[in-house]
Amino acid sequence: MAEQVTAEYLEQAFESAKNWGRWGDDDQRGALNYITDKKRAAAAALVRDGAAVSCAQEFATQPAADNPHPALHMMVAAGDACTIPEVPGLETTSDFIGVAFHGMSVSHIDALCHVFVKEQMYNGYPASDVRSTGAVRNSIMAAKDGIASRGVLLDIPRLRGVEWLELGTAIEPDELEAAEEAQGVRAEEGDILLVATGRDARGRSLGRWSALTGMAGLHATCVPWLHERRIAVLGSDGISDAIPGPGAVGWPMPLHQCCLVAMGVHLLDNLKLDSLAEACIEHERWEFLLTIAPLRVEGGTGSPVNPIAIF
Amino acid sequence: MAEQVTAEYLEQAFESAKNWGRWGDDDQRGALNYITDKKRAAAAALVRDGAAVSCAQEFATQPAADNPHPALHMMVAAGDACTIPEVPGLETTSDFIGVAFHGMSVSHIDALCHVFVKEQMYNGYPASDVRSTGAVRNSIMAAKDGIASRGVLLDIPRLRGVEWLELGTAIEPDELEAAEEAQGVRAEEGDILLVATGRDARGRSLGRWSALTGMAGLHATCVPWLHERRIAVLGSDGISDAIPGPGAVGWPMPLHQCCLVAMGVHLLDNLKLDSLAEACIEHERWEFLLTIAPLRVEGGTGSPVNPIAIF
Amino acid sequence: MAEQVTAEYLEQAFESAKNWGRWGDDDQRGALNYITDKKRAAAAALVRDGAAVSCAQEFATQPAADNPHPALHMMVAAGDACTIPEVPGLETTSDFIGVAFHGMSVSHIDALCHVFVKEQMYNGYPASDVRSTGAVRNSIMAAKDGIASRGVLLDIPRLRGVEWLELGTAIEPDELEAAEEAQGVRAEEGDILLVATGRDARGRSLGRWSALTGMAGLHATCVPWLHERRIAVLGSDGISDAIPGPGAVGWPMPLHQCCLVAMGVHLLDNLKLDSLAEACIEHERWEFLLTIAPLRVEGGTGSPVNPIAIF
Amino acid sequence: MAEQVTAEYLEQAFESAKNWGRWGDDDQRGALNYITDKKRAAAAALVRDGAAVSCAQEFATQPAADNPHPALHMMVAAGDACTIPEVPGLETTSDFIGVAFHGMSVSHIDALCHVFVKEQMYNGYPASDVRSTGAVRNSIMAAKDGIASRGVLLDIPRLRGVEWLELGTAIEPDELEAAEEAQGVRAEEGDILLVATGRDARGRSLGRWSALTGMAGLHATCVPWLHERRIAVLGSDGISDAIPGPGAVGWPMPLHQCCLVAMGVHLLDNLKLDSLAEACIEHERWEFLLTIAPLRVEGGTGSPVNPIAIF
Repeated sequence: MAEQVTAEYLEQAFESAKNWGRWGDDDQRGALNYITDKKRAAAAALVRDGAAVSCAQEFATQPAADNPHPALHMMVAAGDACTIPEVPGLETTSDFIGVAFHGMSVSHIDALCHVFVKEQMYNGYPASDVRSTGAVRNSIMAAKDGIASRGVLLDIPRLRGVEWLELGTAIEPDELEAAEEAQGVRAEEGDILLVATGRDARGRSLGRWSALTGMAGLHATCVPWLHERRIAVLGSDGISDAIPGPGAVGWPMPLHQCCLVAMGVHLLDNLKLDSLAEACIEHERWEFLLTIAPLRVEGGTGSPVNPIAIF
Repeated sequence: MAEQVTAEYLEQAFESAKNWGRWGDDDQRGALNYITDKKRAAAAALVRDGAAVSCAQEFATQPAADNPHPALHMMVAAGDACTIPEVPGLETTSDFIGVAFHGMSVSHIDALCHVFVKEQMYNGYPASDVRSTGAVRNSIMAAKDGIASRGVLLDIPRLRGVEWLELGTAIEPDELEAAEEAQGVRAEEGDILLVATGRDARGRSLGRWSALTGMAGLHATCVPWLHERRIAVLGSDGISDAIPGPGAVGWPMPLHQCCLVAMGVHLLDNLKLDSLAEACIEHERWEFLLTIAPLRVEGGTGSPVNPIAIF
Repeated sequence: MAEQVTAEYLEQAFESAKNWGRWGDDDQRGALNYITDKKRAAAAALVRDGAAVSCAQEFATQPAADNPHPALHMMVAAGDACTIPEVPGLETTSDFIGVAFHGMSVSHIDALCHVFVKEQMYNGYPASDVRSTGAVRNSIMAAKDGIASRGVLLDIPRLRGVEWLELGTAIEPDELEAAEEAQGVRAEEGDILLVATGRDARGRSLGRWSALTGMAGLHATCVPWLHERRIAVLGSDGISDAIPGPGAVGWPMPLHQCCLVAMGVHLLDNLKLDSLAEACIEHERWEFLLTIAPLRVEGGTGSPVNPIAIF
Repeated sequence: MAEQVTAEYLEQAFESAKNWGRWGDDDQRGALNYITDKKRAAAAALVRDGAAVSCAQEFATQPAADNPHPALHMMVAAGDACTIPEVPGLETTSDFIGVAFHGMSVSHIDALCHVFVKEQMYNGYPASDVRSTGAVRNSIMAAKDGIASRGVLLDIPRLRGVEWLELGTAIEPDELEAAEEAQGVRAEEGDILLVATGRDARGRSLGRWSALTGMAGLHATCVPWLHERRIAVLGSDGISDAIPGPGAVGWPMPLHQCCLVAMGVHLLDNLKLDSLAEACIEHERWEFLLTIAPLRVEGGTGSPVNPIAIF
């Protein structure tokens, strides 16, 4: 177990990990800049078998311990009312979806405007740039052309030989590296790093639970490690942060705070990684082409997504 | 101009194009079955430069002639109210999106339950399988692991040397083949075929208009052609159908009716294809890896999507 | 404690309480027909002091044990973005509300299409008249001109000398009559009868709970009593039914089933009655003018409401 | 035709009409304070016949020239899917409504936080009190116990002997007084004043139109008149303001600006007044009990309402 990290440590880690200005004073893409065309082409070249695996949960419309704000899915017209006056002869159905996607069980991407530290966003933009009508900077439109790169899965329960990590478990850098070694893979510049904690397995065995109760995630000391590795996007079957956090005042969720704000690293929350983990074992490799296609919502703080891995 | 097609012609075309039972009596994936792992791997192998292009419109929240039912995008909390009692020290913003996506200006995919012919869906399932609580068959979950395959763009305005096709223009098979020849590409089994009509260019020049007024699209005689070519998915910057339709009673939108119901071909409506068309010219090829990642909505009749082409 | 009621008893009670055809084969207003102009004028004549009291809960946007599907309230534009291009010089804010109001903590009225018994609604209309696009019969439009009549509150906790009734308590007709006698009031033809169970007091003391756990309400033997008294509308701070119900197969919620379907009595669920109860004590009378104004939603199964009592 | 009013005139009118501090520095109810219990009792005493008339439009879910942001009404479960696992034996349907109600065709009430002048609300509260999470002052909760008072209808088309007023018509105080005289009624302290312009009749004859095109309403010179008369609430079948406005810079909608901000007078927009006008003629009186019951939305900028007049 690592020593407890302090607010001083985190302030220093935050400052050291800052990518502000690195890609220009007007940049809003942050670490997505690491994903060059060349990187993307190299990622596509990883595809051999062609098997595709989704990393997303089902759109969660039913209330549950981990879903206090259920998504909406309602039919506009079903099979019992499939004719429409505007187009005689057409039999059609349609539906409506609605979601405040930063909930606890919808797989989504966080835009860089989703979190502030001391009322500042990535690249120094002020909190007031996120207005009641939408974000005027750092919105999800930074990823409007999609995110495609090499995905790397680090499967920590597999490393430990357990089905899932206990709530509150904080994974430290040496454990990430141990997983790299065990799996024969190394997270590099421009990668989308996915860290599995076994959340779904725990839910299946013990029932679903509120994230406020606890989550396994990354230890705050992973911040410098992620920065050094030049990760483009970080994702998890949890929310990347271990809950409860380090207990340092002002830093309840250091991964969210340092990734989104300091580094400009977009986050993928509430992924479903068990199918992917199985596929990695089956294909005996933990790298793959990963594509993420956020909806193009002007001013949005993120998007529900269905990331697709191709082997 | 082709002769007018009759209801008899369309009934025959529908019957001839039927893939019902082809992949089993329980199949709900339809022509997605054409996309094998091998096909997907071959599509990934097309990637050379790594450039990525989105084929989606912006999420359309403002009312317009072509957007009678605007999508909803509202902030749940903006920069002026970014603290939350549940997590002291966290500064965060969030938002809500909601959309009845089968509208006229949101890029979306149609599930196979979106259209019936004579109260039947693809593979013979009855209309009553689409209930007021969602579709129990042929929902968008057929594409839950995403759709990745070779994308082929046929750029008809370019072929004709115009900026856009006039409203009501119906593209016939020989013109599709002329475009193939001019572009040096051929649509084949398992491909995602995209047909550009110049809709965005027309809208920029003449203003946006209601789809009910007219749209360029495919002629009904393309149905046998698409079936023969074993296209997996069909998409357009319009809605694939030419509007007004052929005027044959019962067949207002033959492409929707024959693709979704007879062939089990998912459709992509209201794409934005001008950036893609430019990229094709720039890369001097009209084939690319195309990935589509519908949200995993149980019972859904489709999904808003942001298809990403990679060259 | 009353003997357990059986399915036979309830079938008989249902049949005996049927008002089908009473106001014509085409009627969709049911017991609202008891509220004549004369009745309404008499109700208004009850007003003396002019004090007004709301019987509605706050619109519940936060998840809670009794609110699994929170209502939506989101700003469209707040003070930080109050100018609009359409009207230069105007500073304005606006918001959005959305709710599936038949939840457990939003005060609402049930339309007669909200419940069926054996796939029939009030007046014999079939379940298929409630389509995926809305109810074509028995919608809330039956009350489109509002409901104003004499309101009568029967305060059962006060009668018993307790703060609240225990979960599962089923109030029988003799207790309703005891409350009438104690309060010096008698529920009559065309009245809106409100029955207080102390739900809010219990919630304040013991915390909120899921209605599925249990609710105090009326015993099934109240059905003939309500029918005989010709009550126009029934309301409660619970959901009128005692939960769990009588345990008779097919009759989980006999009040909902017999009031809405047999009698055509609209129901008011999840009211807030503690302020009203205090006002009744203060004014020393348990009758008042009560007005209920459902939103005019064509095809709606009810409406959120804010019933107002005037003394 | 009145002389054009200037910005100076309006600034003076605004200042003169200010009720800031009149009911205390903490007041958020504004002119609702004019409606005392005594006033409410007197209004109830107006009821003789007991006839009830709604003043609300149908919830407008279809796009139209005057409805660019249609309200949402969707079934959650209809007759084809009426059983629910939670309550075996229950057959039930339910629906969802959602609306950004400050649109042009939903009858609604404006809260005092809906409009600012120079970034101030009624009683001097700053615009920043209306946050992205809701209004912390001057929300619709000011009317949480409903609004019941004497309603007075001034029927201007009837006075003029026309079916409707032309777009842009601005009604001046002397015309309001002429209507009072013709109808034998006088708007007084605490009244809810409704002004009919014949909007619905015009729409039925000429088709619906965008409010931005033009609306009949009150002339800016009515502001001092309304203030002097101590009106509690103002409503119209339009939006009270004549459109286009007076052309004075900074004062595009003087009635909204002066009523909501200076006087603290809540507004009722987009009412349906033709049935009420007929009822007034039938009953030969233009005064009645009027009840308005906003939904109790904490932080809300208003509410859809169904005002009910009782004669």
